Amino acid sequence: MPVPTFHGVYPILATPFDDDERLDEASLRRMLAFMLRIGVDGVTVLGVLGEANRMSDREREAVVRIARETLGEAIPLIVGVSHPGTRATVELAEMAARCGASALMVAPTAEPVPSEARIAEYYARVCEGVGLPVVLQDHPASTGVHMSVPLLARIVADNARVACIKAEAVPSASRIGALRTALSAPGSREVPMLTGLGALYGQFDLERGSSGYNTGFAFPEVLQAHLAAFRSGEAALARRIWRHFLPLIVFEQQPGVGVRKEILRRRGLLSSARVRHPGAAMASADAGQLTALIDFVMPQVDITRPLDVAAVMERASS
Amino acid sequence: MPVPTFHGVYPILATPFDDDERLDEASLRRMLAFMLRIGVDGVTVLGVLGEANRMSDREREAVVRIARETLGEAIPLIVGVSHPGTRATVELAEMAARCGASALMVAPTAEPVPSEARIAEYYARVCEGVGLPVVLQDHPASTGVHMSVPLLARIVADNARVACIKAEAVPSASRIGALRTALSAPGSREVPMLTGLGALYGQFDLERGSSGYNTGFAFPEVLQAHLAAFRSGEAALARRIWRHFLPLIVFEQQPGVGVRKEILRRRGLLSSARVRHPGAAMASADAGQLTALIDFVMPQVDITRPLDVAAVMERASS
Amino acid sequence: MPVPTFHGVYPILATPFDDDERLDEASLRRMLAFMLRIGVDGVTVLGVLGEANRMSDREREAVVRIARETLGEAIPLIVGVSHPGTRATVELAEMAARCGASALMVAPTAEPVPSEARIAEYYARVCEGVGLPVVLQDHPASTGVHMSVPLLARIVADNARVACIKAEAVPSASRIGALRTALSAPGSREVPMLTGLGALYGQFDLERGSSGYNTGFAFPEVLQAHLAAFRSGEAALARRIWRHFLPLIVFEQQPGVGVRKEILRRRGLLSSARVRHPGAAMASADAGQLTALIDFVMPQVDITRPLDVAAVMERASS
Amino acid sequence: MPVPTFHGVYPILATPFDDDERLDEASLRRMLAFMLRIGVDGVTVLGVLGEANRMSDREREAVVRIARETLGEAIPLIVGVSHPGTRATVELAEMAARCGASALMVAPTAEPVPSEARIAEYYARVCEGVGLPVVLQDHPASTGVHMSVPLLARIVADNARVACIKAEAVPSASRIGALRTALSAPGSREVPMLTGLGALYGQFDLERGSSGYNTGFAFPEVLQAHLAAFRSGEAALARRIWRHFLPLIVFEQQPGVGVRKEILRRRGLLSSARVRHPGAAMASADAGQLTALIDFVMPQVDITRPLDVAAVMERASS
Repeated sequence: MPVPTFHGVYPILATPFDDDERLDEASLRRMLAFMLRIGVDGVTVLGVLGEANRMSDREREAVVRIARETLGEAIPLIVGVSHPGTRATVELAEMAARCGASALMVAPTAEPVPSEARIAEYYARVCEGVGLPVVLQDHPASTGVHMSVPLLARIVADNARVACIKAEAVPSASRIGALRTALSAPGSREVPMLTGLGALYGQFDLERGSSGYNTGFAFPEVLQAHLAAFRSGEAALARRIWRHFLPLIVFEQQPGVGVRKEILRRRGLLSSARVRHPGAAMASADAGQLTALIDFVMPQVDITRPLDVAAVMERASS
Repeated sequence: MPVPTFHGVYPILATPFDDDERLDEASLRRMLAFMLRIGVDGVTVLGVLGEANRMSDREREAVVRIARETLGEAIPLIVGVSHPGTRATVELAEMAARCGASALMVAPTAEPVPSEARIAEYYARVCEGVGLPVVLQDHPASTGVHMSVPLLARIVADNARVACIKAEAVPSASRIGALRTALSAPGSREVPMLTGLGALYGQFDLERGSSGYNTGFAFPEVLQAHLAAFRSGEAALARRIWRHFLPLIVFEQQPGVGVRKEILRRRGLLSSARVRHPGAAMASADAGQLTALIDFVMPQVDITRPLDVAAVMERASS
Repeated sequence: MPVPTFHGVYPILATPFDDDERLDEASLRRMLAFMLRIGVDGVTVLGVLGEANRMSDREREAVVRIARETLGEAIPLIVGVSHPGTRATVELAEMAARCGASALMVAPTAEPVPSEARIAEYYARVCEGVGLPVVLQDHPASTGVHMSVPLLARIVADNARVACIKAEAVPSASRIGALRTALSAPGSREVPMLTGLGALYGQFDLERGSSGYNTGFAFPEVLQAHLAAFRSGEAALARRIWRHFLPLIVFEQQPGVGVRKEILRRRGLLSSARVRHPGAAMASADAGQLTALIDFVMPQVDITRPLDVAAVMERASS
Repeated sequence: MPVPTFHGVYPILATPFDDDERLDEASLRRMLAFMLRIGVDGVTVLGVLGEANRMSDREREAVVRIARETLGEAIPLIVGVSHPGTRATVELAEMAARCGASALMVAPTAEPVPSEARIAEYYARVCEGVGLPVVLQDHPASTGVHMSVPLLARIVADNARVACIKAEAVPSASRIGALRTALSAPGSREVPMLTGLGALYGQFDLERGSSGYNTGFAFPEVLQAHLAAFRSGEAALARRIWRHFLPLIVFEQQPGVGVRKEILRRRGLLSSARVRHPGAAMASADAGQLTALIDFVMPQVDITRPLDVAAVMERASS
């Protein structure tokens, strides 16, 4: 199985549902094929955007199987396996391993009385239990768990399998800077950190040491172009790319997955933009605004095809 | 299948785990047999005390199967099926129905933006989806969801299958009073309300209209005796019974299920008091205190046998 | 000024308001005089029960002045000075010192991102700023701040002025046990711990090392009798006293200060049971239940007079 | 006194403190003079950005006095008066009125049990109590209070003094759309809605009906230019202005007021970027990143002078 480097662009995938909220396998395969086509470095399924918390165990397994089947051995597959129970997390991780996962994504669950010790144990058990690299997801906005920099450094130091931090605690750029310092101290261990939060702080995170993207922005081609420019030392170009698409990034990262699913639908990747209840699809009153926004950022572009970012920007500025 | 009246004593069962946190079927059967023996009016599995949120779907199903198998058709079996996703709740409810549940217990999940409309829809879908009576669990302490009295009345009025409210929002007695007023208004519908919260407010709730107990206090015989005295008009006796055991009720209802599992272990019902991580067993430093407390409330009583409440009180006062 | 030992019974006082929600000085003086009369070891004003968070700075100052004036130098006066801003806390502390406080009560405020370092700094600044003993209030239910045992031990070790912990994090008895161990470790420092939470866990806390009561239960005479029995080694008597009044303790500690103010009104100490908006007075529908409860626990007792606990218990059991 | 129209740009002002966290009057006057100079439509003091919750009542009063004194009768002065107690809110409002406020800004406080009725009463009492227009601030991120659209509409309908909604519940543009529909229904009443949240959704909010800005972005000249272009029908120009500065808007709206105070310091408006404890100033490690960002958005611009937005954009694109 391909092993992720955690450098590059790793889109978080939405889970497609039909209008009856049933898993839509065809759309899932279509989305995966698209990701292969545009050459991402790996994909993540069953994250927050994937509405994993609203799915049954059986459905989660189906998503992993289909993903690995569709991807073949072309690229790494990261699977979200967070669960309020530690043992159940390990079981989900074992399922993921069996079904072809390349790595796991694991976030802690809020407990009535917060305890750093319990969080550390949680990661220790998952890392002991399953022989796969682990992405430590630090996303207080969805978990309600605030992990301190020293706690993160300790979990990384104590668990060789923790291979990456998905750095989504705000202010993310500042935290990435602090984490780099902490992880490079004697006795600790450096791991790549990936940017989430819909790329809202993408430019700032890269400047402070992010190794790439692990987020659900519906135009991963933009993130690829941004990262490529940044890596090749074209700092001004990188900034310009990011700013060009920033209005769309801001719009998309609003709470809920409805906006993002609607864009994926418009891109032809999802047959339905349905979000599982009690989540909600984008309000129909918002549709025109989204259309105008896309037209501003990508005038006269066929968004159902892979984006040529340079061409889009040129056309927009002309 | 026996149909619950929601009047009487319906213990909430702990889910037994062995020292490796695996489901302990033998203890589960032993606990169920004990409940049959003492003549409870029904039991509930997979509630908060049952650590349902830390279990896999497969394990939940196993618990329901074993419960129905052990109980036969002797008494009603209520099954907790709450899940953050509405569709997944319906699937769990279907599983429960298939495996012999007599009724469902359903609590809402906190969403980033609270919405009364979405909560009402949640109950509507579960009630439409599955042909079983529904216990509406109102327990903000575990769900983080605060439902207003008008919202509860509306859900009851709109869904004929809602057959009971498990009234666990504090102040519970005052709320039960307000709910009775609201449910008896024209256009609404009266349903029984059961007392939870470890019986902490049991006497007060009964006075205001609770129809019995649906809680995990480890000595349901006490709740049976209390309710019997109350129903037969022996008000003073009822108060005395409740007060006699109140220190133990107070001790048990402390956060976490560790204390309760330890008592169940001492009663010979559980082989292990293990709580699933990240939950915790009772601290060993607390063991002596529990022993002294039990000895105060039930001196020289063999707690592995069904309690003769009158005899216990007599002995204690002598 | 009298210096508190933090051993004994230190009632938390309600702040009396008239029916227009104005500070009711006469009732405040009456309540203070009553506390002197029954011989408490000190009193605390401007705690949670005192609705301090709903008062202006000017009103807070008035309460402290009146309290010291009424108490003279008879007993210690502890003043709650918690404020979301550290500097403002210090200013309130300076005001309290000027107006005759013997000690301060200080709880941390929840910040968007929890930080143990900031909480430690908060206590350090208050202790540096003002020359009075400090009661560290640990009450997550009202503050939303969860402090670990090591953090508490560190704050105590680092700040000689921290003279007492008001131990209100549940499970309180177990925490008191853990704190005693932590505070008696080399490099730390032992301080008395007082019981709050309306005395709900009073017996359990005393058994584990609480040095007395610092809570708002409206019959402090009961807490005095309980503590006296416990201290004199009459363990069984202590348990019986606590249990006798436990139904009332349970009723009173329900959320909100309305119940307690109504009882204080019935005791003749408050002219009005008014609670400041958006808080609420006890619902009138609950009045009969309270009457019946008091009659059960203290039949035919004139509650406007200091309670003779032994006599009350004797009468109740006859 | 000048009466605000709630159409236009109303900056929220930071409260300046010196390095000892004392109120820095000179900086406050300088900031106010700057606002007059650039021609804003009014200013708001003592909002979240103003760290009002960390100040004493006396200091709050000083800020209002200085503000009115400095502004003269040139422009409206809106004063934040939110307080956990309703009566204290009214007292702060009376203070504000006495000291020259043109309008009040009022947000609700989270209570242990949320209640729409209590929130409505809160606004009713403030509106009855004080003869000034009220800005209803809807900002769940800081208050923890989620108000439904029907509740907001009802408060507006019932209180003629509610003159504006500061619409800061996300997704803000969609909410503004829904509110416009609700407020234009029969029996309701339309009021202007202003954009907050650091202008993060400024373009989207204007498109859906926002009447301008009421936020703390440190370059209000940009918001003026954006709004002017939008109002004059130059849609494409408006979008371009907003996007040009969007990286800075994104950077500034990160949690905490430290970044914004640092920018204000660099603009020469604050003598110190100090934030009151337990808040924190921007980390010094972040300073270089901010410098680079400003240089990208406003190359070679003297930011201590009022910005010529058109010139800045031209220079940046050349």
